[in-house]
Amino acid sequence: MRITAIYDSVESIASDIQNAYINFSKMTCSVVAVVTDHIVDGKPVVGYGFNSNGRYNASGILKDRLIPRLLEADPDHLVGEDGYLDPHRAWDVMMTNEKPGGHGERSVAVGVLDMALWDARAKMQGVPLYQLLADRAGRKPDSEVWVYAAGGYYYPGKDISGLQDEFRQYLDLGYTVCKMKIGAADLSHDCDRIEAALKIVGEENLCVDANGRFDRKTTLAYAEALEQYRLFWYEEAGDPLDFEIQAALIEAYDLPTATGENLFSHQDARNLIRYGGMRPDIDYLQFDCALSYGLVEYYRTLDVLAEYGWSPRRVVPHGGHQMSLHIAAGLGLGGNESYPGVFQPFGGFSDELEVEQSFVNLPSGPGLGLEKKANFRVMLMKAFGDQITI
Amino acid sequence: MRITAIYDSVESIASDIQNAYINFSKMTCSVVAVVTDHIVDGKPVVGYGFNSNGRYNASGILKDRLIPRLLEADPDHLVGEDGYLDPHRAWDVMMTNEKPGGHGERSVAVGVLDMALWDARAKMQGVPLYQLLADRAGRKPDSEVWVYAAGGYYYPGKDISGLQDEFRQYLDLGYTVCKMKIGAADLSHDCDRIEAALKIVGEENLCVDANGRFDRKTTLAYAEALEQYRLFWYEEAGDPLDFEIQAALIEAYDLPTATGENLFSHQDARNLIRYGGMRPDIDYLQFDCALSYGLVEYYRTLDVLAEYGWSPRRVVPHGGHQMSLHIAAGLGLGGNESYPGVFQPFGGFSDELEVEQSFVNLPSGPGLGLEKKANFRVMLMKAFGDQITI
Repeated sequence: MRITAIYDSVESIASDIQNAYINFSKMTCSVVAVVTDHIVDGKPVVGYGFNSNGRYNASGILKDRLIPRLLEADPDHLVGEDGYLDPHRAWDVMMTNEKPGGHGERSVAVGVLDMALWDARAKMQGVPLYQLLADRAGRKPDSEVWVYAAGGYYYPGKDISGLQDEFRQYLDLGYTVCKMKIGAADLSHDCDRIEAALKIVGEENLCVDANGRFDRKTTLAYAEALEQYRLFWYEEAGDPLDFEIQAALIEAYDLPTATGENLFSHQDARNLIRYGGMRPDIDYLQFDCALSYGLVEYYRTLDVLAEYGWSPRRVVPHGGHQMSLHIAAGLGLGGNESYPGVFQPFGGFSDELEVEQSFVNLPSGPGLGLEKKANFRVMLMKAFGDQITI
Repeated sequence: MRITAIYDSVESIASDIQNAYINFSKMTCSVVAVVTDHIVDGKPVVGYGFNSNGRYNASGILKDRLIPRLLEADPDHLVGEDGYLDPHRAWDVMMTNEKPGGHGERSVAVGVLDMALWDARAKMQGVPLYQLLADRAGRKPDSEVWVYAAGGYYYPGKDISGLQDEFRQYLDLGYTVCKMKIGAADLSHDCDRIEAALKIVGEENLCVDANGRFDRKTTLAYAEALEQYRLFWYEEAGDPLDFEIQAALIEAYDLPTATGENLFSHQDARNLIRYGGMRPDIDYLQFDCALSYGLVEYYRTLDVLAEYGWSPRRVVPHGGHQMSLHIAAGLGLGGNESYPGVFQPFGGFSDELEVEQSFVNLPSGPGLGLEKKANFRVMLMKAFGDQITI
């Protein structure tokens, strides 16, 4: 087995949304196609990968460092004892001559390639990735995965009705739990928005997300005001690396919190567990493999969690993409984020899938099944149609 | 004042050295020239910046995000109340629509531009940067800066004599304190190398650097063996984000330790201070502005240190470049790293400067004075000579 070519492309993942920290009008992502000489059904296996929203494309690092390292590697260094492509060995090749620490951007670039490598690996074995992962873990894959609808944006001029309309659409799509942005307005107006949202989704079905905007004082002021609403969770109040804020929040707030989407390595995740005061019985962890060195690193993160007494069921990844759906079903995570309608064609799941009562079923084909998403396939054709048969 | 153009180039900063973690045979860095329409001595002011060794160029992020943001910004957003270019305001422009956390690579890209912006700013005022920084801080700049010679590599086949020869050269150049690599050999052989090095530099003049390679057990085994040698410091034993290893080391080792070169934001620096057990009376901090969002962020890091009772004199930056030399003299840091002979033309100081008894004097011209380094000037001519008058 050899990797014969790796193509990469930068694609827009822009949307006209805004959270408390950034707007997404110029958001991009990287997409790669990893072509192998392993033939299945008469065609060489190709794996596809991309990064999820929030951190821009990683094209420079891919082209300068990671893709050349994979292509220049001795093919034996990329193959496991079973003769298949081994993403764990490929990970070591990609990270050759990379110093420790500084986990950002590079973590995205590795995440993009790691996704494609796992896609290719599962296609070589002719199974959906979740099945491969479950087999390796010695468990049965989950038959469906809990998902929630992330959105709940600000609608200047019609904040209340716009938000309620948005959440009504999510309920119509089969979601029961919805998430809304807070922190871009003042507390009083955010409380009005929350009360309006609760009228649509009902108590214990609403998450709120401050996107790391709050200082300690604002974190605690919101906590005091939010407690009455019995929220599903209160997400990323303070800076993702200010574990004292998270610990202070948990000290003051008895209900579930969630954080972790901006921690991009098992070392950073471990620091959250060590210092953030997170409670393994009620809090949620949101690490996103597509931003944080891929599934190979995710295994390490799950090992760290196990060491500190955390079940994988407390993990609900950020990103709303099909890679995390496979990981969730294969390794028994607690669920997955979903962004109905935004971040297309990268967000969301294969067209064949349906959400009912906030649970989604699983893709049936080999690999990740990204090609079964019509708009993803169109994007692939435009990006790589001249080089490969899709 | 407007920025009229920003040019960037990727340059080799390769060397045939190797630490316990990586080799530097394909190391690159980014260089930028920020051209303004502010005229001094009949010529538009141009600022130059680059990143120091260890983390590769940041070209993709510079071209995709940071340079466009600076060039597209309302010029008023880049200028302070005094009418000069304001690197603090430029920092906010560069970081527009960037999410919190994930401090790596992006931190390098911002560091490169920040250096050029400060160079331009000081040139506009006609003063060396260290003078500008001291004035802003209401203090007199230091007239010289403590430096130590970093190197002490492995010499396959002649480890002892090669190391001793290298350190003899550093003493001849005026250095008294030298630093050597450890961790790429076993403890017993590293002890032989240390004993050989001490014969050249003398007790209390030797630093050792494990480059984050050690697990907890190895960290402590080395600590026990090293204590007898009365080292100047024991640097970066464990993973830079594993603060428990650092705390365990300090619990076990009574002599100075040093770390921080792989922490790239004030939030990461703060976590080291909060959780790493570092002692403000004897330990050293090595944050490098050129890898960690530049001087604007360095001010924040120094503020965090002050909050936790740390003097800037405990800070001795990684990187061996002239930007940190100016910061050290201007803001009263404890010193600066120096790599005699390697990482050229980016490492080292202006040709006019001399090291005596491990102290170096300061450049006299306006700005950073990088153009006074002959080999740096040659590099600038090759990279940007067609676009600008250097």
